[in-house]
Amino acid sequence: MADSTVQIGILGCAEIARKVSRAILLSQTATLYAVGSRSIEKAQKFAADNGFPATAKVYGSYEEVLDDPNVDAVYVPLPTSLHIKWAVLAAQKKKHLLLEKPIGLNVEEVDVILAACEANGVQFMDGTMWMHHPRTAKMKEFLSDAKQFGELKSVHTCFTFTADQNFLENDIRVKPDLDGLGALGDVGWYCIRGILWAADYELPKSVIALRNPVFNKAGVIISCGASLLWEDGKVGTFHCSFLTNLTMDLTAVGTKGTLHLHDFIIPFEEKKASFISAVESGFKELVTGWEPKPSEHTVTTDIPQEALMVREFCKLVGSIKNEGAKPEKKWPTLSRKTSLVLDAVKASIEKGFEAVEIVS
Amino acid sequence: MADSTVQIGILGCAEIARKVSRAILLSQTATLYAVGSRSIEKAQKFAADNGFPATAKVYGSYEEVLDDPNVDAVYVPLPTSLHIKWAVLAAQKKKHLLLEKPIGLNVEEVDVILAACEANGVQFMDGTMWMHHPRTAKMKEFLSDAKQFGELKSVHTCFTFTADQNFLENDIRVKPDLDGLGALGDVGWYCIRGILWAADYELPKSVIALRNPVFNKAGVIISCGASLLWEDGKVGTFHCSFLTNLTMDLTAVGTKGTLHLHDFIIPFEEKKASFISAVESGFKELVTGWEPKPSEHTVTTDIPQEALMVREFCKLVGSIKNEGAKPEKKWPTLSRKTSLVLDAVKASIEKGFEAVEIVS
Repeated sequence: MADSTVQIGILGCAEIARKVSRAILLSQTATLYAVGSRSIEKAQKFAADNGFPATAKVYGSYEEVLDDPNVDAVYVPLPTSLHIKWAVLAAQKKKHLLLEKPIGLNVEEVDVILAACEANGVQFMDGTMWMHHPRTAKMKEFLSDAKQFGELKSVHTCFTFTADQNFLENDIRVKPDLDGLGALGDVGWYCIRGILWAADYELPKSVIALRNPVFNKAGVIISCGASLLWEDGKVGTFHCSFLTNLTMDLTAVGTKGTLHLHDFIIPFEEKKASFISAVESGFKELVTGWEPKPSEHTVTTDIPQEALMVREFCKLVGSIKNEGAKPEKKWPTLSRKTSLVLDAVKASIEKGFEAVEIVS
Repeated sequence: MADSTVQIGILGCAEIARKVSRAILLSQTATLYAVGSRSIEKAQKFAADNGFPATAKVYGSYEEVLDDPNVDAVYVPLPTSLHIKWAVLAAQKKKHLLLEKPIGLNVEEVDVILAACEANGVQFMDGTMWMHHPRTAKMKEFLSDAKQFGELKSVHTCFTFTADQNFLENDIRVKPDLDGLGALGDVGWYCIRGILWAADYELPKSVIALRNPVFNKAGVIISCGASLLWEDGKVGTFHCSFLTNLTMDLTAVGTKGTLHLHDFIIPFEEKKASFISAVESGFKELVTGWEPKPSEHTVTTDIPQEALMVREFCKLVGSIKNEGAKPEKKWPTLSRKTSLVLDAVKASIEKGFEAVEIVS
């Protein structure tokens, strides 16, 4: 029997689904209603280990989750190559969709998924958690402040981590038939989103990949980078990799201000997160130091960013379900733009580092 | 009558010469012995304003400084286009040479200057002050530690400042006949040096400029960037500009560690400077935070980096003068490598952003 909260079903028992299960509990706006796995034993263990209530439904297939009429929405953390099948089916079954990134193997797949969501009136959102941290809103205020930050001219992002041998050989993110986008899809997604976020989601005119991508034996990207260019001269650059120490930087430089942080995707701590801003920085007499110096700002949050993501998703689902609202287009739009740029980076690599025009 | 300290003459009364005059005083290893300007009144005022002793020589020309037999060494902060004339003449007059960056308008000029220094047995050093901060040595220790940092894979640097209208119209750094290298020579020099420093001065194989340089009406670069590529897959990227808020970042990422700082050229404060290092960074259970987190390290210094630069220069000059030592080749070598890469960035811009091979 449905209550006022959103009843969520999870497809598969991915590691990230453990974090999102906790987020669903913490959100207090959704219920861990069902989980489905190709192995019912795995689903049972997952439900028992991740705080599902005793009444939760445990299924031995993904289909059964989608066929359960009490499931309002699904969270889909399956390998990227399976997204198109299961996301489209979920939409057709009128399930609102919280889909892990990357959304599809290319923007054509993304468009099929988004079209299915639109045709079926369901909310779409991808799993880019940092978008929902209150720090992100606070930083956006700064970037939007013409007096403090001025006009954005350059933004640099970086997300890398050192994968161990087991990951590099066996993780789904290095398998061409599972997550064929490799590091570009996994960590590069965030770098691209960070740049677009700083640029108010204005798409760049063109993208040029850095000439040093690294591929594994199966041809999957495990390290790469690119520059993104806008008509007005703005530039974004990023680097993403499975081969270097965990690093996640975002630096945005405007005509008047600068924004710095080193943990933009996963804050160092769960309940507070900081950023550094500088406004009209200058030097002391004789250039012996800075005046003013950059300053640090800390933003606290009662619940983690992934629980805020679930809350936002459930708020939109609730509006559709209870008030007949239309799905919010912001979230699918951001996913599509991120995919478009990601495709252009991949195309630039494939074309020998040519500039690739972005055609939306 | 010469004492045991190095007697320095300054050619010209540039703003930066005020800072270096103070550094010469603070170094306690050199004497502000002479200053020459095309205007003797300017030279007199400069000497009076900048702590020159009453016995200091004040000349109405650069030649007279070079002809003074008691001048051991000269500091030359003239516009870049004048370097070749005055640096070569100084070397021929057997004056040791502390020359402001950029060294020349291209590496051919640099080679002429360095050859003159070598032929005349004088020490050469460029004015890249941050090389001499004890923080720089401390950071190098970290980067060289295979267990802590591992192998360098990427390094990103950035140096920008917002020039005002007066600067953009009148400063020598935007004049094609004075400092024709513009922002690339002024701020890009440091970005390139920072990358080379992190890479143990191994020259990259090729350089590709970013496709968004900005030129002023006279054709001088006021904003640009590039990527530097090494045969082993290492990549360096930088951005330099006169058009955005004062920002100076260096981020080096290795297989095991990460180095971050936001004030690598001019520390925020004169007597202490920090950097952030991270070693084998990872996530907490469920990726709810970082464990371990990066840590901040502070290095103090009694005298500022530019005084340490003067000390190092005078130590080398003293060894030559008093002990018959040979000039130290490290410093001219670093200047030349920086110029080589700078030339390649310029060539890549001129060739429509083609990859330009570095041939040393």
